[in-house]
Amino acid sequence: MAYNLLKGKRGLIFGALNDKSIAWKVAERAYEEGAAFVLTNTSASIRLGTINDLAKRCNTIVIPANATDPHDLENLVTKGMEYLGAPFDFVLHSIGMSPNVRKGYKYDDLNYQFLTQTLDISAVSFHKVLQVCRKYDAINDWGSVVALSYIAAQRTLYGYNDMADAKALLESIARSFGYIYGREKKVRINTVSQSPTLTTAGGGVMGIDNLMDFSERMSPLGNADAKECADYIITLFSDLTRKVTMQNLFHDGGYSSMGMSLQAMKIYNEGLEYQDVKNDKTKKK
Amino acid sequence: MAYNLLKGKRGLIFGALNDKSIAWKVAERAYEEGAAFVLTNTSASIRLGTINDLAKRCNTIVIPANATDPHDLENLVTKGMEYLGAPFDFVLHSIGMSPNVRKGYKYDDLNYQFLTQTLDISAVSFHKVLQVCRKYDAINDWGSVVALSYIAAQRTLYGYNDMADAKALLESIARSFGYIYGREKKVRINTVSQSPTLTTAGGGVMGIDNLMDFSERMSPLGNADAKECADYIITLFSDLTRKVTMQNLFHDGGYSSMGMSLQAMKIYNEGLEYQDVKNDKTKKK
Amino acid sequence: MAYNLLKGKRGLIFGALNDKSIAWKVAERAYEEGAAFVLTNTSASIRLGTINDLAKRCNTIVIPANATDPHDLENLVTKGMEYLGAPFDFVLHSIGMSPNVRKGYKYDDLNYQFLTQTLDISAVSFHKVLQVCRKYDAINDWGSVVALSYIAAQRTLYGYNDMADAKALLESIARSFGYIYGREKKVRINTVSQSPTLTTAGGGVMGIDNLMDFSERMSPLGNADAKECADYIITLFSDLTRKVTMQNLFHDGGYSSMGMSLQAMKIYNEGLEYQDVKNDKTKKK
Amino acid sequence: MAYNLLKGKRGLIFGALNDKSIAWKVAERAYEEGAAFVLTNTSASIRLGTINDLAKRCNTIVIPANATDPHDLENLVTKGMEYLGAPFDFVLHSIGMSPNVRKGYKYDDLNYQFLTQTLDISAVSFHKVLQVCRKYDAINDWGSVVALSYIAAQRTLYGYNDMADAKALLESIARSFGYIYGREKKVRINTVSQSPTLTTAGGGVMGIDNLMDFSERMSPLGNADAKECADYIITLFSDLTRKVTMQNLFHDGGYSSMGMSLQAMKIYNEGLEYQDVKNDKTKKK
Repeated sequence: MAYNLLKGKRGLIFGALNDKSIAWKVAERAYEEGAAFVLTNTSASIRLGTINDLAKRCNTIVIPANATDPHDLENLVTKGMEYLGAPFDFVLHSIGMSPNVRKGYKYDDLNYQFLTQTLDISAVSFHKVLQVCRKYDAINDWGSVVALSYIAAQRTLYGYNDMADAKALLESIARSFGYIYGREKKVRINTVSQSPTLTTAGGGVMGIDNLMDFSERMSPLGNADAKECADYIITLFSDLTRKVTMQNLFHDGGYSSMGMSLQAMKIYNEGLEYQDVKNDKTKKK
Repeated sequence: MAYNLLKGKRGLIFGALNDKSIAWKVAERAYEEGAAFVLTNTSASIRLGTINDLAKRCNTIVIPANATDPHDLENLVTKGMEYLGAPFDFVLHSIGMSPNVRKGYKYDDLNYQFLTQTLDISAVSFHKVLQVCRKYDAINDWGSVVALSYIAAQRTLYGYNDMADAKALLESIARSFGYIYGREKKVRINTVSQSPTLTTAGGGVMGIDNLMDFSERMSPLGNADAKECADYIITLFSDLTRKVTMQNLFHDGGYSSMGMSLQAMKIYNEGLEYQDVKNDKTKKK
Repeated sequence: MAYNLLKGKRGLIFGALNDKSIAWKVAERAYEEGAAFVLTNTSASIRLGTINDLAKRCNTIVIPANATDPHDLENLVTKGMEYLGAPFDFVLHSIGMSPNVRKGYKYDDLNYQFLTQTLDISAVSFHKVLQVCRKYDAINDWGSVVALSYIAAQRTLYGYNDMADAKALLESIARSFGYIYGREKKVRINTVSQSPTLTTAGGGVMGIDNLMDFSERMSPLGNADAKECADYIITLFSDLTRKVTMQNLFHDGGYSSMGMSLQAMKIYNEGLEYQDVKNDKTKKK
Repeated sequence: MAYNLLKGKRGLIFGALNDKSIAWKVAERAYEEGAAFVLTNTSASIRLGTINDLAKRCNTIVIPANATDPHDLENLVTKGMEYLGAPFDFVLHSIGMSPNVRKGYKYDDLNYQFLTQTLDISAVSFHKVLQVCRKYDAINDWGSVVALSYIAAQRTLYGYNDMADAKALLESIARSFGYIYGREKKVRINTVSQSPTLTTAGGGVMGIDNLMDFSERMSPLGNADAKECADYIITLFSDLTRKVTMQNLFHDGGYSSMGMSLQAMKIYNEGLEYQDVKNDKTKKK
């Protein structure tokens, strides 16, 4: 169902790889809600995924850009405004990658060149997008910017590694730039802290299936999926949320406010019981 | 501008006194967005304010109820569902009052009977509303409940007194009941932590004008007003935010994430300068 | 080992029931560190427990008082200062009880008279203690006050019920009164949010054993026990922490900052596996 | 006054420049409390400051090291352990610097090479210290690590610039490594979020004097100074706080929990009044 919430609005969407991507769902929903926008991703991701299909479906173009390269971003922003005929009303940043995770470096054995890359790709790129937009006056007054985050920014999860630090940095950049851009141009900047999601990126995290089972049972409303996340982000791009800024907004079915649910504890209890059963067997032998 | 975001939805709105009330603005906006709802307030507030005008404008009725009295709430909920022909999809709780503040008892000289009243009126009433709704199965699956809060729940403001504790309790109740109601019926429960607002209630707080000036200058987007708050709450009642629950959501132009803004510091600096000027004058005498 | 950290200091300790109590351990450690203090509890708890043994061991007296009754508290405070010959330098509040939990009322079926009692006993009593102390000028400048809390104040745990709301209220009172008492007399007020602990009170919570197993495995340092909690509180009573106030301090082996540990996830994974094993058996039948 | 809290303990202290430094005060207090330790700083800082005087006074040596260079850190850690005859029981990280701030680049016009340096010096260096310590097994079981932070990690202050993001990253690293090091060796890792302090580093921040006046009046106990910070850190290095980890601990006289104090508001009110006075004068002209 569509509401024309973004009628007449223009946007810039980073990070759609394929139809599992949150950015993909946001693009689809933004299109339904009446927005025009340009899509962007790295050349490698464009080849790897199916973003061109999305562009066709949303009647728009893809402008390749490496979000860690200010020159690429300048080209993207000027071309994007040119294509749309006006500055942006909304921007989505859905970018994250850790070479340390990919190459199996553990958190107490990080490769520091990789760490710099993790931070640059997953967090500093957000600052670069904002700084280039600010320089080219590329976001209209009362525009809305959203970046995707994860609760690992606040609470440590084994295996999430240096991405946790990148997300903490990302959320800080949202606050820091949110002050400047808000003061100067009334642009709001928030992060959405989403449930673990089975995107191509999310799927790479170690043991994601069981972790998602845990968060599903911990969350009174269950995990939020990519489509629901897109719905939520649409509200943040709309004119109805103009005074929300510098916030990290949990979109997670309640997970972040849970200490322990009955459902999750049941499974944990079974795990303890299973251990006892196994130990008994071992003893009997 | 309206989007039909609440088309076909039914609601229950507590706390509209007059056209300055946030609940009043929510009712107006909910009506514009296609919702049907019943209004309620205490008999005293109904006499004191102009809620009947609002009811006319929104083509609905006012059912008097004291939100601290479960019997009144049972009557309200059953009558409300009867009038609307179905259970509620959304509920707004915008209720708060401190007899200690009204009668001038300071925080280190509280009257404990009054404190019990502050907590009962401003926080426990929220639990009572939810418990009665739950018993009468009065909220549809995936319904949305919002209560209004204030940043005093996290940070102490001189003069806000025992209302700070009531707001902290209110936010805790939102989490606690959010778990139960989410688990059982997929109902989401959140609090909105709003900028200081010149409602009849807010106007009663000591030194509110200058405090609002401070928060206006601290917030990169300025204070959020009652109308903007209503817009935001509409998004929380809509189907686009179904997985947001157990959260305290700041709607405050960025205030909550600010340590110090240039604008606010300028005034503070002038205050320091003025003190020096005055001291010099005193010395010269 | 003792350091003379509280040499010459006088105190008031609420809530020692028996040798499992955190307050008991605090008293023992405070005594070792050179403090003099008076102990207090309700008459019922005095009969029920062994606090008189503690008093003997610490060379002091027990003054019965119901912490929800300001008259009792006035008697306690004046008698306590009389016995010690001077005002207090530290106060420990370790009091909590929910009739709703005891009588088995669930959170969506609360008895509201019991809720008032839960809040009064577990949270408002803290305000009463502080207000009476303030009136009788019973805490020395730079004195230190600590109340015991639990993470349920921030995150919902099934079965913890209205105690979660009481702890949220308690922590808010610590902030609110911390401002006033700090401003006026340099007294600091903090809450310590402790790991689940097998005290007589903690032992009453539903499913505490397995919950403690979960938090033990989630916490990189394991759960903190009552003795360790006492050690920590001693530092908060000492002169080395004079500028820490209005804080909720987690003493929990790191639990509060964990999203998921490898150890806890292992058990959870076994629980999922066990379910599969059971389901297979069922299918085979 | 000393308590022998660190008797027999060995440590490593980063960041003492001169007698205004927090690290300097920590060293002095650690020495008084019975600890042995080595001091370190960059060669440039050693020349610029007076750390050799401190070493003499504390009967120890200074080992130069650039904390962003793992090779330097390896040399430091091995030499340090050699000098002390055993691994460390405590480590202090008090390092921060932003070339963007120094060279006057504003937050929406950052030099990205400088940003990388800010993050590397002020945050990633902490990870490097920990990773090198872990590799050389240089911290004893139940050892304690503290890094100094500032509230800008949570709330934006104009002019604090990319140091805010660095502090957010620092606090995240403390949590992430706190999990690993806690799980493996029972080492605890915390950050202390200190009041603005007139160190040589702190003194460089724009408008620090008036900001310190504001936080002084906002904090019920006033700003915490470097000496008090050292006292507090001693407790975190002691055996009395063994189960506190992965926390950001505010040591700020209550500032972080304040929304508005009467004292600060008075100055702000005077600022508003002064503006009116000036405006009247302008009008009369």
